[in-house]
Amino acid sequence: MKNVKVTLVDGMKFSAIAGSGHTVVMDADPESGGRDKGSRPIELLLMAFGGCSGMDVISVLRKKKEKVSNLEMNVKGKQAESYPHKYTSIHIEYVLTGKDISEDAVKRAIELSLDKYCAVGATLSGTANITHSYKIISD
Amino acid sequence: MKNVKVTLVDGMKFSAIAGSGHTVVMDADPESGGRDKGSRPIELLLMAFGGCSGMDVISVLRKKKEKVSNLEMNVKGKQAESYPHKYTSIHIEYVLTGKDISEDAVKRAIELSLDKYCAVGATLSGTANITHSYKIISD
Repeated sequence: MKNVKVTLVDGMKFSAIAGSGHTVVMDADPESGGRDKGSRPIELLLMAFGGCSGMDVISVLRKKKEKVSNLEMNVKGKQAESYPHKYTSIHIEYVLTGKDISEDAVKRAIELSLDKYCAVGATLSGTANITHSYKIISD
Repeated sequence: MKNVKVTLVDGMKFSAIAGSGHTVVMDADPESGGRDKGSRPIELLLMAFGGCSGMDVISVLRKKKEKVSNLEMNVKGKQAESYPHKYTSIHIEYVLTGKDISEDAVKRAIELSLDKYCAVGATLSGTANITHSYKIISD
């Protein structure tokens, strides 16, 4: 069981504290009555997905002794035009930098994350169609 | 279209920057090879849900001139026991403090958020069964 407590600070600003003890601040944009003092809640879903899958991918590649010097995920989410504007599709691009990184290892690591390990991706995939791509950069 | 960039910092620590310009740090717990320097990605989903629905509820109640001095959401998520441990159920408890808050107004505000407005709830509800409760405290 995971649990969090989210508290109104002022205006549309909320502070969330998780069971792990860490805090995240959220706020609406000025057009929605906020003052932009934190991320939009809807953005947090994409951040969570990038972090979750990134942890899986880097773990698998480290176990395979791949030399990854940088790992970046660009996550884009498309929302339905009508309310409640749920995510209909999410694309995650993995950008891996390193020396002689095996493309097969990268493909396998991503596959393991998206099909087997990533709890965030598995939760979001009930509503959003998830697609991915990757780019390997030599350094 | 919403977009975020998530970058590996070190170990299992990732920093996410959203289109809005705000940053959230995530890390794994020590048992998973992390150093607990930020929230777990899976916790962010519950934080996002509490923030999203809290914004809806406070907006509706302010429009109705209800005097809410504090609003807190306790969000609990239950994950499947087997991989990928997706959320199977999420409960959100709204705790409202204020003077003479109308219970009908509270019920209606929550209903509007969960059935109509909250994009995060609508996205999560594709996988998790969402339930709610509320508590009104007089001050």
